[in-house]
Amino acid sequence: MKVLLIIIDGLADRPIPALGNKTPLEKAETSNMDRLASLGMSGLLHPVDIGIRPGSDVGHLSIFGYDPEVYYQGRGVFEAAGVGFKLTDKDVAFRGNFATVDKNWLIINRRAGRIEDTQELVKAVDGIKMNGVKFLVKKGSGHRVAVVVRGKNLSHKLSDSDPHKENEKVLAVKPLENKLSCRKTAKVVNAFIKQSHQILVKHPLNLERENKGLLPANMLLLRGASIKARLPSFYSRYGLKSAAIAGGLMYQGLARLLGMKVLRVKGATGKEDTDIHAKIKAATDALKIFDFVYLHIKAADSLAEDGDFLAKKAFIERIDKEIAPLLELSDTLIVITADHTTSSLLKRHTADPVPIVIFGKGIGTDEVTTFNERSVIYGKLGYIQGRHLMPILLDQIGKLPIFGA
Amino acid sequence: MKVLLIIIDGLADRPIPALGNKTPLEKAETSNMDRLASLGMSGLLHPVDIGIRPGSDVGHLSIFGYDPEVYYQGRGVFEAAGVGFKLTDKDVAFRGNFATVDKNWLIINRRAGRIEDTQELVKAVDGIKMNGVKFLVKKGSGHRVAVVVRGKNLSHKLSDSDPHKENEKVLAVKPLENKLSCRKTAKVVNAFIKQSHQILVKHPLNLERENKGLLPANMLLLRGASIKARLPSFYSRYGLKSAAIAGGLMYQGLARLLGMKVLRVKGATGKEDTDIHAKIKAATDALKIFDFVYLHIKAADSLAEDGDFLAKKAFIERIDKEIAPLLELSDTLIVITADHTTSSLLKRHTADPVPIVIFGKGIGTDEVTTFNERSVIYGKLGYIQGRHLMPILLDQIGKLPIFGA
Repeated sequence: MKVLLIIIDGLADRPIPALGNKTPLEKAETSNMDRLASLGMSGLLHPVDIGIRPGSDVGHLSIFGYDPEVYYQGRGVFEAAGVGFKLTDKDVAFRGNFATVDKNWLIINRRAGRIEDTQELVKAVDGIKMNGVKFLVKKGSGHRVAVVVRGKNLSHKLSDSDPHKENEKVLAVKPLENKLSCRKTAKVVNAFIKQSHQILVKHPLNLERENKGLLPANMLLLRGASIKARLPSFYSRYGLKSAAIAGGLMYQGLARLLGMKVLRVKGATGKEDTDIHAKIKAATDALKIFDFVYLHIKAADSLAEDGDFLAKKAFIERIDKEIAPLLELSDTLIVITADHTTSSLLKRHTADPVPIVIFGKGIGTDEVTTFNERSVIYGKLGYIQGRHLMPILLDQIGKLPIFGA
Repeated sequence: MKVLLIIIDGLADRPIPALGNKTPLEKAETSNMDRLASLGMSGLLHPVDIGIRPGSDVGHLSIFGYDPEVYYQGRGVFEAAGVGFKLTDKDVAFRGNFATVDKNWLIINRRAGRIEDTQELVKAVDGIKMNGVKFLVKKGSGHRVAVVVRGKNLSHKLSDSDPHKENEKVLAVKPLENKLSCRKTAKVVNAFIKQSHQILVKHPLNLERENKGLLPANMLLLRGASIKARLPSFYSRYGLKSAAIAGGLMYQGLARLLGMKVLRVKGATGKEDTDIHAKIKAATDALKIFDFVYLHIKAADSLAEDGDFLAKKAFIERIDKEIAPLLELSDTLIVITADHTTSSLLKRHTADPVPIVIFGKGIGTDEVTTFNERSVIYGKLGYIQGRHLMPILLDQIGKLPIFGA
């Protein structure tokens, strides 16, 4: 028996007055998900634990059975792996934005007006060397970058240069440990920030943007310093050959760090315009080869973070239409859940548990006939935590070792 | 107030298409259990934890409040205690089968055609001494034996000689630790296997069986090497005088290791033909003397492992009829649950939680009016784990210490 795990990023929400105090998922017409709930086993999942508000990276790690307290080392490495960096054990990785600052390094715009074509700018700041340390920069999606600091005796215990707000000044990166290696790393990173700024300010592309009245991308805002976690592979843990389908680079990076085969799907953008049909088709094909397929769908989260609960509802309805063929799959366990709740009203992640449904031949059933945050309270799974999911799935496919005799 | 804990082995199941997607328990007519559920407090019990698939031994230990991570040392000791061995702290105990092998030790039949009358064969191989080590053999039920290795500096970190499959060769017992004591124990156990085989091959009873066209019981297949766990007694933990009623020797052994008084009941076989009426009567009598009575009923599990869900359903109905007198007991807490789920379709234990009902004067109630895997989801107990049960029962009978003031 195979497993298809569909993680709909930020699927769960809170009741919204404008939706008659229903959530986007409750309000959405989701006959296929409801059918899965009717025939399968539902419940509520705390991606990490009760009262933990997870980021997407941490929510994912926990759901895959990797205790984030042990394995989470900050998001930089997942971003870096996502853009294609092959990290060494000594590299320190940041995620970052191209941003716009004034002469006093006051942040005018954290995303340089959501600049997209940053290839030339990245080239201009990639490969800078100072004090025996090399800075490697790769373009991420949109305005994003990954920055890898490569050298001897570096530390990742560093604060962000990104104040995470506009109309504030760029912060100096500070050492978070009182060690020579840490102070040294902070110093050279700050020097890199300064030098890259000087390069960017004068870059022809930015001068051209200013002439056109666009915001110049003249600052790299860095955050999430981290080193590569020693993650045991998904295969070594579960004996399952696994593949991942995700538009977002961070999710690809995370899957790659777990040793999953990342499958590229044309039209999978990690955004609202993503080709869900193509992703479902790719997942179905992958199930012929792999034991476990992880399918990530991002935009439900982004739309909620933009506060657009109507678009979130419509996006969920699109997903529901496209999953119809999955109900016909034989010998496959289908799991639908989320990595966290995203409140469309608050425009941020919350700690609420997320609905989960597991569907497949011979599974225990319950009285749940619709799939949403409220209905699954009465499901047989009850309340589970991320770390419980993989054992439950292994049990369903007959690969959970017995404890005792 | 007294406690009667009835563990119906493998009671819970998964939905079965031939039963209209109901479980044997859902499909069975169980008016007495339903009455207990109506008057009492129901819920779902994870015998060990969510996502753990327990063996019967581990499920029981956990339900009695003995963390199997701490106290479970392999099944051999429970079997040995079950057949009446008084183990020392240094004994290594195996459970084993009489099996049939060919000249090359290829296994023809793992149970020697389910031989029953093994007394003479046991006598022939009991008491063998080699290299200062003595091998004690006692008959178990049917084709089973318990083998105790007694001597100085022995180790129980040993692999099985039983490959757990037919048409495979008997395995050499291997040391699982790189220690002299372990290598030495493996060596002497292998020598015992060889010598006992040589004795069994020539034994008149086996020659006679061969003449009759029956399978000779010419090999002892060993598994589950273990040493006696230092189990604090049930009484020292809970201050309750306890008794056990069980047909299966392993369950008797486990109860004995916990210091429970094992009561023999005529007709209690641990099989489908067991005298449930006599067992219920014995339990009722025992409640006059003991504070806590553990009653084990085995065949629901065995029938499910044979895939016979109809017989399982019928057996559950027989149990239900026989428990009628328990509803009249005064001043007694009655608990019905299982040590694990056994899927009749998969013919194996699964990690699904099991239903539990607690009934007694003054107990909290809920809306549950039938007793099965699905109905108890709505019970007041919610989802509990094995380790929670004894404190809950102690609280009901007024013997749980307060935490705080």
